[in-house]
Amino acid sequence: MVENNGFLYSQVAERLEQLIEKGVLRTGDKLPSVRGLSEQQGISISTAFKAYSELEMKGLVEARPKSGYYVRFTSQELPKPPLSESHPPPPKDISVDEMIREVYRNLTSEGIVRLSVAAPALEHLPEAKLNKSMMEALRADANSCIQYDEIQGNGRLRQQLARLAFNWGGKVAPDEIITTQGCMEALSFCLQALTRPGDTVAIETPGYFGVSMVLQSHGLKVLEVPVHPETGIDLDYLEDGLRRMSIAACLFVSNFNNPTGACMPDECKERLVKMLAHRSIPLIEDDIYGELYFGKSRPLTCKHFDEKGLVLYCSSFSKMLAPGYRVGWCIPGRFHEQVLKQKLAHTVTSATPTHAAMARFLEAGRFGLHMRRLRKALHTQCLRYTQAISVFFPDSVRATRPRGGYTLWLELPPEVNAYSLYRRAIRHNISIAPGQMFSSDGRFSNYIRLSYGAPFSEEIERSLMVLGELVKEAGD
Amino acid sequence: MVENNGFLYSQVAERLEQLIEKGVLRTGDKLPSVRGLSEQQGISISTAFKAYSELEMKGLVEARPKSGYYVRFTSQELPKPPLSESHPPPPKDISVDEMIREVYRNLTSEGIVRLSVAAPALEHLPEAKLNKSMMEALRADANSCIQYDEIQGNGRLRQQLARLAFNWGGKVAPDEIITTQGCMEALSFCLQALTRPGDTVAIETPGYFGVSMVLQSHGLKVLEVPVHPETGIDLDYLEDGLRRMSIAACLFVSNFNNPTGACMPDECKERLVKMLAHRSIPLIEDDIYGELYFGKSRPLTCKHFDEKGLVLYCSSFSKMLAPGYRVGWCIPGRFHEQVLKQKLAHTVTSATPTHAAMARFLEAGRFGLHMRRLRKALHTQCLRYTQAISVFFPDSVRATRPRGGYTLWLELPPEVNAYSLYRRAIRHNISIAPGQMFSSDGRFSNYIRLSYGAPFSEEIERSLMVLGELVKEAGD
Repeated sequence: MVENNGFLYSQVAERLEQLIEKGVLRTGDKLPSVRGLSEQQGISISTAFKAYSELEMKGLVEARPKSGYYVRFTSQELPKPPLSESHPPPPKDISVDEMIREVYRNLTSEGIVRLSVAAPALEHLPEAKLNKSMMEALRADANSCIQYDEIQGNGRLRQQLARLAFNWGGKVAPDEIITTQGCMEALSFCLQALTRPGDTVAIETPGYFGVSMVLQSHGLKVLEVPVHPETGIDLDYLEDGLRRMSIAACLFVSNFNNPTGACMPDECKERLVKMLAHRSIPLIEDDIYGELYFGKSRPLTCKHFDEKGLVLYCSSFSKMLAPGYRVGWCIPGRFHEQVLKQKLAHTVTSATPTHAAMARFLEAGRFGLHMRRLRKALHTQCLRYTQAISVFFPDSVRATRPRGGYTLWLELPPEVNAYSLYRRAIRHNISIAPGQMFSSDGRFSNYIRLSYGAPFSEEIERSLMVLGELVKEAGD
Repeated sequence: MVENNGFLYSQVAERLEQLIEKGVLRTGDKLPSVRGLSEQQGISISTAFKAYSELEMKGLVEARPKSGYYVRFTSQELPKPPLSESHPPPPKDISVDEMIREVYRNLTSEGIVRLSVAAPALEHLPEAKLNKSMMEALRADANSCIQYDEIQGNGRLRQQLARLAFNWGGKVAPDEIITTQGCMEALSFCLQALTRPGDTVAIETPGYFGVSMVLQSHGLKVLEVPVHPETGIDLDYLEDGLRRMSIAACLFVSNFNNPTGACMPDECKERLVKMLAHRSIPLIEDDIYGELYFGKSRPLTCKHFDEKGLVLYCSSFSKMLAPGYRVGWCIPGRFHEQVLKQKLAHTVTSATPTHAAMARFLEAGRFGLHMRRLRKALHTQCLRYTQAISVFFPDSVRATRPRGGYTLWLELPPEVNAYSLYRRAIRHNISIAPGQMFSSDGRFSNYIRLSYGAPFSEEIERSLMVLGELVKEAGD
């Protein structure tokens, strides 16, 4: 037997005290019984008793008759120390990474208007129906979703995802799909399957900062291809790049790019796929916003034009149904085995309950109705936000007119620094995404991204008004 | 607007036909209404109607009065083609990777006795209580667990995990913990935070094949350190290795190693931590089996002896509570920021519902009782399996005597090839893990791993008897 010898009562007491100090144990928490502590720590009953007595003397725990020991006081209850400075000066030389972390960190504070989050507001999501689907999954599955799921992904979910592909002209069998923990994991597995550190991957600029982070983590270099707010990727620029250097893969958002909202016309998608197929270069297509179109019908995808299996299609339900469920997927074409191997190596299987619940939600046939409502709401919000911007912002500010997705991309006067604007806005409890976050080198310093995921309200209107004033001040 | 132009009715019909052939659409499935199909595909009502008429002629769909179109027949209903060969010859030169995939693939067949799976049987898991915790989480959380969770991990869960650390002598605050999608993801993030491709990592041999897979995926080299079935890692061998070459990190299972069940004595853990601290080499400690001890108290961890923050502790609930929930965690010490950055880059956040449900299960205080029962069951099963092996297997077979965990490691006579034995056993619907799976180069070819996760039963007894006979035959 392996025993925990050598613990005296003061050592046990000291460790408990640290747990109380760090807030792991909180006021009112019941502690193990003397016998329980003794068994748990491999010490004698009398040693356990002595440990508690010591803590009682310090006023940290109390014995309640016939009930046991409880935490009496934690240091969290002391008054908070005064802040050393309430208006720290903006750091002079902040990296893009640090900027992203700062924006994320400030998001969790109470009362923040989150114009920086490109995700649906809770009121747009089918909360009750999702809960019902989860309960059905737990009740109906023989093992209550406790056991490992198939490595490739939940079979019922893949069946539904194959049907969803029909919307963008896809002919996909369930066996061709691999489920993932959100779209980022899908992108990460595809990159790891296709590239080696030091390789170059073509991406969009401006583009989603998450893509830069995952590329950096895999040790990859980038070719940044400019995005036109209307037509997307500059294909001539890309073609020139392909001639000049060796590109291991491309990773593009084909529909409603984040942050610009650009949607490649279908003929451009076809040209892109052919251009890459000619050189046997794989394309990772991030279509996470594709279903969020404001027009009459869904735009196609690059995968639709893929004849050689070189397009690795990636998407997720994070922007459509439930960010917190982390249900994404990948259709990797001829790279199926390689991507599946990455999934097995890094995560074994996806979470069973969330993926099974999503399958049942889709099976119930409520996805279509939900998406019609969500699209309508987003379109309305996009227009209302844009109108407010035109009223409150200086005339020199330019804004995109997205036809889908979540985000507006605003060009401010050249003298405005978006990060400084962020710092001033956050003091008014308004969070925006400074343009610098959407490139690797801090370009777009006079751009900001505003998300219209939340319903237009007086609070939003007021926030946009304040923001407009701040832009005016900054431009003076 | 981006429109899907140019689809004639026959093209739409053809695509629907392919969906039916591939089984994406199944017999009895309701199809979109004529109007729905028209809107979805951007075609006219009459074109949509013609598409359905064509499929009706082919007998693939049927119109039901006042209800719409339904799938009438799918090719899955045809009789299955005969198998070309029912006993394929064993491949001559199979790689370890291929072997692992074969073993996994065969696991999902009906009626297989899964002696190869090191995970708890469903009857040992608190199914109803977990379901209740999930429902509470969905009902009580303001957003029904739909939204993104904190990047570092669910706050309530981290609070509970900090308490759990007390069991192995840990003094950990919730802020020092990062939650992950199971233990494998934790290991993967740690490796990515600590190493660069081409670096060498010290691992155990025999050791869990998942570790080799993730190292391979990160482009890492390995130093394989022998494991003694009683005392674990050969520290003298390791020390010699550290002198001879540059090691970027170590990754060891300190308690109840898979497959041998070896548990490092506490003094060896202390020596290991000091040896590595002296050279500033980080240790990734996989403690996934640590709570599954058969003795009186829990073995300590290397993290307990860590004074410099060089130990990155990783674990999960996959072997204790719910493999399918994918709830793991990491305590990365001084590498906290680096590991958190990996999580943000590769998966953004963990799934909210499963992690929130686990937090509530732990808060309800039922973990201790469940674990006492599980440990007792595993200990009993370990003994019963071992007894049956001693009755049915040749005397020359040697078996480990684990004091925790899920697995027995059997040394067969040198002339027995474990992979050939696997192929013969699977014909009897018995799945075992051949020893070759637990090294990078196919060593341990006369070893097998048997898991005692399932309760001992007549079926298990019969399977072990058959296995014993097969070993005898193979040894003749």
